Amino acid sequence: MKVVSHYETLESSQFDGDAVKGVAGRIAIGKEDGAANFCMRIFTVAPGGFTPRHSHDWEHEILIHAGAGQVLQAGQWTDVSTGSVIFIPGNEDHQFRNNSDADLVFACLIPKGAPEL
Amino acid sequence: MKVVSHYETLESSQFDGDAVKGVAGRIAIGKEDGAANFCMRIFTVAPGGFTPRHSHDWEHEILIHAGAGQVLQAGQWTDVSTGSVIFIPGNEDHQFRNNSDADLVFACLIPKGAPEL
Repeated sequence: MKVVSHYETLESSQFDGDAVKGVAGRIAIGKEDGAANFCMRIFTVAPGGFTPRHSHDWEHEILIHAGAGQVLQAGQWTDVSTGSVIFIPGNEDHQFRNNSDADLVFACLIPKGAPEL
Repeated sequence: MKVVSHYETLESSQFDGDAVKGVAGRIAIGKEDGAANFCMRIFTVAPGGFTPRHSHDWEHEILIHAGAGQVLQAGQWTDVSTGSVIFIPGNEDHQFRNNSDADLVFACLIPKGAPEL
């Protein structure tokens, strides 16, 4: 068993560029832990930040852990906040943005074979 | 894409008995949503409540979403709280209990083939 007292104690990677801004990503549970079937990542999006707008052939299972923001759903921005759940099937265009004044934090799980971060 | 504004809007199942007490479970993302590879459940454990002590051949990937409690880890109760991450490999004995005075809420993900609830 692996118990991490808080995800913020885990190493993070920072993503900033044209396509992605203000995003810190952490592999919470992955291949290195022996998780063979799916991987939990935790992303923190700073106010004004956003994830890439893209699609790929694997799915996302997402829980908003803290804060508030928006997800691009069929071309429309939809509000999400702490406790929201989002399922993004493979090959669906998607993006998150933080239009609030506090960090947006979400767990995003992917199946084996997809890039962990 | 499926967007649930808050997990509490989802149907819940209540578990109360000798082996489990004060637990409400919700399938947040599952087979019915087209999630073919893994399933997200969200459990709320009331103060004084606990999950079954058991083991099984599938793994759990867990994020503590709210509150505080303890997880049984190698025979010892270990404190967990909002933001904690727990990976329980298959065939490891495990149990959660809520020794706090507020609800303990966690997301618990399982691979395909395991019972969703």
